[in-house]
Amino acid sequence: MPITANDPNRKSWLEVPNDSDFPIQNIPFGVFLTKDDVITIGTRIGDSAIDLGALQQMNYFEGIELTDDMFMQDTLNDFISDGKKTWRLVRNRIAEIFDAENPLLRDNAKHREIVIFTLDEIEMQLPVLIGDYTDFYSSKEHATNVGKMFRDPENALLPNWLHIPVGYHGRSSSIVPSGIPVHRPMGQTLPNGETTPVFGPSRLIDFELETAFITTDANIMGENIPVHEAEDYIFGMVLLNDWSARDIQKWEYVPLGPFLAKNFASSISPWIVTLDALEPFRVKGPKQDPTPLPYLQQKGKHAFDIHLEVSIEPENGEETLVSKSNFKYMYWSMSQQLAHHTSNGCRVNSGDMMGSGTISGPTPDSFGSMLELTWGGKNPIQMKDGTERKFINDGDSVRIKGYCQNSDVRIGFGEVCSKLLPPFTRK
Amino acid sequence: MPITANDPNRKSWLEVPNDSDFPIQNIPFGVFLTKDDVITIGTRIGDSAIDLGALQQMNYFEGIELTDDMFMQDTLNDFISDGKKTWRLVRNRIAEIFDAENPLLRDNAKHREIVIFTLDEIEMQLPVLIGDYTDFYSSKEHATNVGKMFRDPENALLPNWLHIPVGYHGRSSSIVPSGIPVHRPMGQTLPNGETTPVFGPSRLIDFELETAFITTDANIMGENIPVHEAEDYIFGMVLLNDWSARDIQKWEYVPLGPFLAKNFASSISPWIVTLDALEPFRVKGPKQDPTPLPYLQQKGKHAFDIHLEVSIEPENGEETLVSKSNFKYMYWSMSQQLAHHTSNGCRVNSGDMMGSGTISGPTPDSFGSMLELTWGGKNPIQMKDGTERKFINDGDSVRIKGYCQNSDVRIGFGEVCSKLLPPFTRK
Repeated sequence: MPITANDPNRKSWLEVPNDSDFPIQNIPFGVFLTKDDVITIGTRIGDSAIDLGALQQMNYFEGIELTDDMFMQDTLNDFISDGKKTWRLVRNRIAEIFDAENPLLRDNAKHREIVIFTLDEIEMQLPVLIGDYTDFYSSKEHATNVGKMFRDPENALLPNWLHIPVGYHGRSSSIVPSGIPVHRPMGQTLPNGETTPVFGPSRLIDFELETAFITTDANIMGENIPVHEAEDYIFGMVLLNDWSARDIQKWEYVPLGPFLAKNFASSISPWIVTLDALEPFRVKGPKQDPTPLPYLQQKGKHAFDIHLEVSIEPENGEETLVSKSNFKYMYWSMSQQLAHHTSNGCRVNSGDMMGSGTISGPTPDSFGSMLELTWGGKNPIQMKDGTERKFINDGDSVRIKGYCQNSDVRIGFGEVCSKLLPPFTRK
Repeated sequence: MPITANDPNRKSWLEVPNDSDFPIQNIPFGVFLTKDDVITIGTRIGDSAIDLGALQQMNYFEGIELTDDMFMQDTLNDFISDGKKTWRLVRNRIAEIFDAENPLLRDNAKHREIVIFTLDEIEMQLPVLIGDYTDFYSSKEHATNVGKMFRDPENALLPNWLHIPVGYHGRSSSIVPSGIPVHRPMGQTLPNGETTPVFGPSRLIDFELETAFITTDANIMGENIPVHEAEDYIFGMVLLNDWSARDIQKWEYVPLGPFLAKNFASSISPWIVTLDALEPFRVKGPKQDPTPLPYLQQKGKHAFDIHLEVSIEPENGEETLVSKSNFKYMYWSMSQQLAHHTSNGCRVNSGDMMGSGTISGPTPDSFGSMLELTWGGKNPIQMKDGTERKFINDGDSVRIKGYCQNSDVRIGFGEVCSKLLPPFTRK
């Protein structure tokens, strides 16, 4: 079925600002709360949020097989369960409804008023109920940087890294949408040179620049997903800031991996951009040497050219851009990650989220964490307001943006932005 | 509020076989499917399963504040959310209803027929929707054994182990109730002496003898749970077999911890035994030296004397008991685990599950995994049918049982038993 929603020549009757991440070719999916306290599934065109639940009630999706309340829900899980064909039909239909040439809704003022919201009239929610959250570690540059700093500069990559899309389980309960502030965690750390740990506020709070993909029901327990089918089970992508407490991490992570250093908060952008919308931005990934084992081998373009940037905005201060990276640098593709994840028969459900791991590029200004950008705090970042940063300060907001751009169209994610607050205190 | 349900002198009008794990003093909670394809929340006395949804509909819980459909659900999450006071009221009421002296239901044949099922008329389900699953590593004997085998016999425990209840995130989607067979996973492993990995069926499948506790909503994001309050947020416990593929684990686990080696399956016993029911079996845990940091310090009895045993039953063969252990050996208590888990503000929800980690005792016959029992395969176990086991064979069923016993009463968990099948093949 063709993805007619991607037609680069289509214009919408809704206004779309220049350089908007959300032209009519994007049509992402999200969940929002309206000013009337109604939760609904929606999409976004330009700076308009669109209530898909209301559209469905008024029969705009007639002819597409959907349960009656498909878009009147507080998560996208059921819609995602319906599979790729349905996602495509719905996206194509939305493109038609908002096509500049289509008078149906355009000229129906009453319907428009019910369906369309300005952004300040809504509050974005988590788009899915995330059953399980996996975080990979698939940037070679990031793994190499970390290996150089913490292990052996001469053998920075561990022996398994070039053979396995290394990943681990994260915590779903701590995933929050953009805009929700995050408290600096307390935790146990081992001061340098000491043998007895202490408990107190983490002193080394970091961001991690990541993307994540959201899956549909993929398999029954025991069954694997072949790498060449894996993309069929990926609904779309979001931006992810995988907040990290480096001092807690260093003391706790051997031998079972990071735990409290990561599970105090992970922030995501609220609009899921579909893999269909990203189709024009496929590129080849980095050459994989050694050749992966057959279950991870794939041909064609499975990376995506997604520009990423991170900035830090001090409280009441001017924002400083601290990193520019790109998703295309990732060594392991999303399809390889999903094929590996299910190679042992691990069950993957609708609404599961899988993070890329920190996305570091080849140059020092493209690194995806303060740990790497300041090389463990040795080279502080100069901020526009004259201050320095080794890690994130209380009151700082960390903003990650992402977008794809070609000569025809720009498809973006908006942003994930959240502020770091001091440690929580009981009232 | 007194736990009148624990009265050791109470008898039930339902028959309870000698040495049953489920006398009227137990009153665990579970979810089952009836022969009429109805899913309901239930409890068990002797060999009778009791439909609590039907009891509620017939007003047997009058006077207790419960939503109308509290027990007519397919998970216990909402009930668990209601908190400790409600759990206690309901358990006390169930004890009254089934008290030998109470004619109300005893003498109402019509009601009895609706409410009571024999075990072969029902099919046990997962008792909760598990949002997040954490697995700890809190047996000193187990951590020492693993350290001796894989790291340094002289410094078997890692430096953080005596300071932190080390834990990591597991995968919720792979948790299944007792009785569901498990496929031997495929996976990537590094053959001994080689530098290039291979892909194929895991050759070293192991069980891990564990228990797990189920939490209620404990905190908002950012807030910690003090160690002396932690038990208020623990609903109850189950038995857990944390299936493990040792060869996959060895190759994948550095630096982010076990992943595919664990997430192909974890099996739990279906009846949640409440912490209230385990109250008479509190004991002091092992002495903790060095003294933990203040946020982990607690006084009193926070360990539980739960006898545990594991047996292996070959296909069509006789069962062999391979381990006898006890939950009281655990170095870190459940309250310390939960206090540590939330010390960074990590959100804990109703229905989250936290595993103890492998429960190994001090003697070689009390170790909680084949890895330890056979010392990495060096000392195979002699089976009653004349065969040997280094790890688990296809067709073997692994059965874990657990119970508490004093002169008055026996409170047990029943069992978690599941069969290992050959690798999954597509039809």
